[in-house]
Amino acid sequence: MLSLSDCQSVINRHINEIKLSGLPVNLYDPVKYMLGLEAKRLRPCLVLMGCNVFTDQIEAAIYPALAIEVFHNFTLVHDDIMDQSDMRRNHPTVHIQWNPNVAILSGDVMLIKAYELLTHESVVNLQQILPVFNETALRVCEGQQFDMDYEGFTDITIDEYLKMVEYKTALLVAAALRIGALTGGASDKEAGMLYEFGRNIGIAFQLRDDLLDVFADSTVFGKITGNDIVTNKKTILLIEALNVAGQDKKSELLGWLCKTRFERNEKIAAVREIYESLHIDELVGQRIRQYHKAGIDFLNQLPCEPDRKRELACFSDYLLNRIK
Amino acid sequence: MLSLSDCQSVINRHINEIKLSGLPVNLYDPVKYMLGLEAKRLRPCLVLMGCNVFTDQIEAAIYPALAIEVFHNFTLVHDDIMDQSDMRRNHPTVHIQWNPNVAILSGDVMLIKAYELLTHESVVNLQQILPVFNETALRVCEGQQFDMDYEGFTDITIDEYLKMVEYKTALLVAAALRIGALTGGASDKEAGMLYEFGRNIGIAFQLRDDLLDVFADSTVFGKITGNDIVTNKKTILLIEALNVAGQDKKSELLGWLCKTRFERNEKIAAVREIYESLHIDELVGQRIRQYHKAGIDFLNQLPCEPDRKRELACFSDYLLNRIK
Repeated sequence: MLSLSDCQSVINRHINEIKLSGLPVNLYDPVKYMLGLEAKRLRPCLVLMGCNVFTDQIEAAIYPALAIEVFHNFTLVHDDIMDQSDMRRNHPTVHIQWNPNVAILSGDVMLIKAYELLTHESVVNLQQILPVFNETALRVCEGQQFDMDYEGFTDITIDEYLKMVEYKTALLVAAALRIGALTGGASDKEAGMLYEFGRNIGIAFQLRDDLLDVFADSTVFGKITGNDIVTNKKTILLIEALNVAGQDKKSELLGWLCKTRFERNEKIAAVREIYESLHIDELVGQRIRQYHKAGIDFLNQLPCEPDRKRELACFSDYLLNRIK
Repeated sequence: MLSLSDCQSVINRHINEIKLSGLPVNLYDPVKYMLGLEAKRLRPCLVLMGCNVFTDQIEAAIYPALAIEVFHNFTLVHDDIMDQSDMRRNHPTVHIQWNPNVAILSGDVMLIKAYELLTHESVVNLQQILPVFNETALRVCEGQQFDMDYEGFTDITIDEYLKMVEYKTALLVAAALRIGALTGGASDKEAGMLYEFGRNIGIAFQLRDDLLDVFADSTVFGKITGNDIVTNKKTILLIEALNVAGQDKKSELLGWLCKTRFERNEKIAAVREIYESLHIDELVGQRIRQYHKAGIDFLNQLPCEPDRKRELACFSDYLLNRIK
């Protein structure tokens, strides 16, 4: 069975092989730049691993996997414009390195390229996977719009936040597994179980991401810790905190949210202290474990040899415990 | 045989039937808004007419036609952001009516929706038309990037300009016909002839558009005439003029291009006068007739009853002679 790192090697080898350059250079150089940045390739690896549960022949899953990765990178390029993010994977974002127009158009090209990869002759079940891809792509856009709609609101419910996370992040993880499974010959029912596994660990993955931004060690995390706090980003920590805090803590927290002039590290330390005093890390940790368990339950139900799904179980443990 | 106006009715009826609304409203309202604006629906009509050359059963072409129209509208939404256009079809553009982020994301949704329409169960030859759609979509983006790259340059050659027009405008017209033809059961060779017909009349269409902006009567044209002159837009008229003008006229024209403060109507009148003195309208008219003739030659070569292609011939005459 292929491990995560086996799959990463396959993806990285093929990413370099697909034609990413072309004319005009201002259109294709950003595509090459974006896909060339070091990345974990988790989503395309899940396509391969989902396929590998049902067959040892994973060749037919390679192009769908590349399509998922290119699609994911399209969303990053456009989201970074919308969120005005300057850095991505320790490098300037496309709209900073070039300009917003170039980022819009090269993002569009990446979305079309994703469909082109899906249409590759090696893909044996296009009719089956294209509707999954289309629907997921729409949900991801809806998730991003919910995220933008929620900006500036402090009264988002936990359910609203979780739905946004599901759409924006988890459903692509789920779809990667469903597409991989279908390509490997799974029945709709089997593919549906892997989809539910993916949906749950996808949510756990994003909650873990929220947690890491506040509590991870910045030297291993790669990002500067506390960024979400500084930018008032809606995270599960903030929403839980506003939810469980008493009047005093709540107004202290809202005070920090409203401040326009502050010392960065002071704000991070203060908000982190509020989170700690409310045991938000434990509350969020509990949620992560719940989603993780729900995901694993679906994986366990899948009727196949335990050996064939071991790598996916390892993968979900890795997501639960990752420190970066 | 279906006329252009028959096809327009079919398209407008179906545009209203496909599900365009949904949540979040900030994502789907712009889609509904954009597709609800009065439009000529030329490209989707060409899908139906291309199909109708080969069969009376045009049902299988309806969803591909809708896909082409939704794709075309996606390009308008994103192009309008990039070109900072405030008005489209006599209404505020999406990024003005909402904001640029909404326009980016609802444009993305329209691109995905185009693929979803193409994936509709009524589409019988997805495997055949999807690669055509993908390649054309990439070329359209490349054309837009060439257009942006050429901004601010005064030394674009006529060939460079024509290639840009071909990519940005003509190839989608050509692809609409090819996809329609293939859906109607045409051979690759027959579909290729309609494609070449479309490519040529597509170029003629854009050159006519350039001409109309300067010389059309604004009361029937719908747009304010002379806008391209005011904004220094690269058009076939400007490039021809810079090409054929003697030293005096050329420096007069460059003078107007460089002026940052001017009276709008004065600039329009002055540049139009330069064009007239150089007989640019005749030069451009000649080019339009050349492309029109090249297109018609391909149509004439197509081996089928003359009756079956009469509507397409009428269509190309309409494009050549249209006054708005």
